[in-house]
Amino acid sequence: MYLTAYKRKVINNNDTICAVATRPGGALGVVRVSGPDAIRITDSVFRSASGRTLADSQSGRVLFGQIVDADSQTVDEVLVSIFRTPHSYTGQDSTEISCHGSAYILEQVCRLLIEAGCRQAGPGEFTERAFLAGKLDLSQAEAVADLIASGNRATHRIAMSQLKGHFSSELSILREQLLQLTSLLELELDFADHEELEFADRTELLSLARRADDRITELARSFKTGQALKEGIPVAIVGKTNVGKSTLLNRLLRDDRAIVSDIHGTTRDTIEDTIQIKGVTFRFIDTAGIRQTADAIEQIGISRTFAAINKALIVIWMVDAQPTPDDISEITPHLEGKKLILAFNKCDLQDYGRFETASLQLPPDSYKTIEISAKFNNNIPQLEEIIYTLADIPEINADTVIVTQARHYEALTRAHENLARVIDGLTSTLPGDLIAEDLRLVLQDLADITGGAITPGETLQNIFSHFCIGK
Amino acid sequence: MYLTAYKRKVINNNDTICAVATRPGGALGVVRVSGPDAIRITDSVFRSASGRTLADSQSGRVLFGQIVDADSQTVDEVLVSIFRTPHSYTGQDSTEISCHGSAYILEQVCRLLIEAGCRQAGPGEFTERAFLAGKLDLSQAEAVADLIASGNRATHRIAMSQLKGHFSSELSILREQLLQLTSLLELELDFADHEELEFADRTELLSLARRADDRITELARSFKTGQALKEGIPVAIVGKTNVGKSTLLNRLLRDDRAIVSDIHGTTRDTIEDTIQIKGVTFRFIDTAGIRQTADAIEQIGISRTFAAINKALIVIWMVDAQPTPDDISEITPHLEGKKLILAFNKCDLQDYGRFETASLQLPPDSYKTIEISAKFNNNIPQLEEIIYTLADIPEINADTVIVTQARHYEALTRAHENLARVIDGLTSTLPGDLIAEDLRLVLQDLADITGGAITPGETLQNIFSHFCIGK
Repeated sequence: MYLTAYKRKVINNNDTICAVATRPGGALGVVRVSGPDAIRITDSVFRSASGRTLADSQSGRVLFGQIVDADSQTVDEVLVSIFRTPHSYTGQDSTEISCHGSAYILEQVCRLLIEAGCRQAGPGEFTERAFLAGKLDLSQAEAVADLIASGNRATHRIAMSQLKGHFSSELSILREQLLQLTSLLELELDFADHEELEFADRTELLSLARRADDRITELARSFKTGQALKEGIPVAIVGKTNVGKSTLLNRLLRDDRAIVSDIHGTTRDTIEDTIQIKGVTFRFIDTAGIRQTADAIEQIGISRTFAAINKALIVIWMVDAQPTPDDISEITPHLEGKKLILAFNKCDLQDYGRFETASLQLPPDSYKTIEISAKFNNNIPQLEEIIYTLADIPEINADTVIVTQARHYEALTRAHENLARVIDGLTSTLPGDLIAEDLRLVLQDLADITGGAITPGETLQNIFSHFCIGK
Repeated sequence: MYLTAYKRKVINNNDTICAVATRPGGALGVVRVSGPDAIRITDSVFRSASGRTLADSQSGRVLFGQIVDADSQTVDEVLVSIFRTPHSYTGQDSTEISCHGSAYILEQVCRLLIEAGCRQAGPGEFTERAFLAGKLDLSQAEAVADLIASGNRATHRIAMSQLKGHFSSELSILREQLLQLTSLLELELDFADHEELEFADRTELLSLARRADDRITELARSFKTGQALKEGIPVAIVGKTNVGKSTLLNRLLRDDRAIVSDIHGTTRDTIEDTIQIKGVTFRFIDTAGIRQTADAIEQIGISRTFAAINKALIVIWMVDAQPTPDDISEITPHLEGKKLILAFNKCDLQDYGRFETASLQLPPDSYKTIEISAKFNNNIPQLEEIIYTLADIPEINADTVIVTQARHYEALTRAHENLARVIDGLTSTLPGDLIAEDLRLVLQDLADITGGAITPGETLQNIFSHFCIGK
């Protein structure tokens, strides 16, 4: 049913679709139309001020006029842009109608277009048409959704790099290397057939395969960073009750909060715990204060704190006095594998005493220390600097390739597994035709990322259903 | 301070402003730029794909390309439309940058434009520039805000009619009539000066003044309708507890709810009580059930119900059995001046008995009756039809003039008061020069509505501060 519906949609790729492409409620709103009848249908509801029709206009023109209903009543005064195939986002004839932004008007304009022969577009259908027209490969199409969702500089740059095809060219280089490997294997096969010789020297083949595998592994590994950047790098603030955790969190959240809440809108829960440091999102995980307690409910809170530490990449352990041996023995086992910051809070207080780090029995270079006053806003930028440094974010430029999609990660992981068998085969003098079989799988795994004519409908359906309507 | 800030802004009308004009978070978002440097500033952050600059492009063209930051990093792939003075909304050189709709991207594009010399636009500043350039009069400018806020066919049509200048032409006709009256008065004055004659026959003058006053009064009166259409026509459903009021409300709200909630977003309280009948919004006022009770809190609920009835234009009194004389004597005093519908609910029940309306002691033609079953959805469309009929909405076409702004209503009321003095003066043979004084006031009252060079900054500030940013 799912697949059938999808196939029908792909077959219907040559109908004309329309959708509201902006979020209703602003000063302006845009309705998009794409398909072979886009210009004729738009003309049928549009009266230009100059009397000129869209049909008589060149690609890349904007006409001012009115959208009118069947009774010739003006629905809105609009600007209509016209894009003729192939010079459009979808590659098809397209129009963009810039209206006043009320939901009512945008709805009415779409209703008129549908009455005139358009179909309401599904999620991502414009980008899907761009993909089917060969304007974008699949990973670039996926970058469009990431770009729209991007809320900070890091994720924005990664998405932009992917949209511009930098990931695709990496994959294309890998593909060439693997095709070269295939050719060499075929050469060996020809030798074997005709001359009944021993297996040729496979040093060059092995080196080629290992080089490709290194890059594939590196790309797959970048997914962890990509995911952390997309979701926010998890940071836990732990410490005893009343040590000042909430005050610190409020300090860290300060200015960024308003900006972020504008973006996310409804998901207040996550908003309140997210900050941006140098364009990277850090997600603060709320934790209860840790103290010895017999109170059952408080114990649940404390065990949740330890669960939070488990999810965190970075842990800020806040102290305002020397922890007791009990405190230390309770917290330290949970710090294994975490990047630790010891934050000595209340450094403004007169009786603030220097803290004995030796008693922690942690390797001296396994953590950073900083004196802060959450209350008086002392050293907070320095703390942010330490957090950023520990996160170890690679420099992200306009051409940085970082994998951000689980689908790509899975394909790269499969490619690595299949390539591992190729390498095994090459070292164990497996016959070339069996190795070539595994190589073909690796090539297919990589091709799955950028997609192509043979991409299954289910995959496409899955990708584009996550888009918003109008894109 | 308020006025000074405003004056500074008007003086600065010749700087270049920018703003996000769509609600962030959609597939697309639009940033608007207007002012003498709009094209140069946009060019400074834009690299077109064709290499052609905006400066080299004609008005009404769309260029594809990229917005780039100071490090030549791509912020977004965009379409830029260019409009040269006077062929733009504001009358100034303008550009519209169509980006991906993420709040981050839209913010970055605005930031780059501001760094390149733009100023962030205030609310309504684009429309204000259109007004200052003489593209729109003040009442048309106000219609733009109404158009964006319109959530149903009625308010949309009224705003569109006002935007198209139908209200302005009515005012201009009135103005001509009053100027004619002024000329006739001046003629009389000339006579009086030179010939020492008695006051001339004022029949024609009186008839002219009364005709103008009738139209002004009619326009002022339409404000009640305009306001009810904008805010929703208030309807109260009253009746005893458990008579089925909530079930009826849910029936009435059915499909419309989703559409309306899309528009308003956050204000759920009002949404849940709003329905559209034939493109007109009706606002249902929740009421507590009415019954004799000693419970103090419940009594508060009941007195609120009576307050709700007071605000309503239409009251639906739901009954499922013959009301007791006590019920009747409690409710009927509150129905004075209301349009009443008696809804006999639970008409599906076997023991449903016909109701004795005579006992209500209401004039028989002062209310409508209908048998419904809220539970089984019987006769609900018929009930809606009665509600709509009782609301007595005038037919609203593309040229219907209905006053929707309190500011206009006040100006019309002042005009009527001053014109009443003119009429008094004409009947009491007051000297022509004193009458002419009052006439000038009437002309000024009407001119205040459409505005002009002499409109005080405070008035403009007040009007445009209610706009959204980007319009």
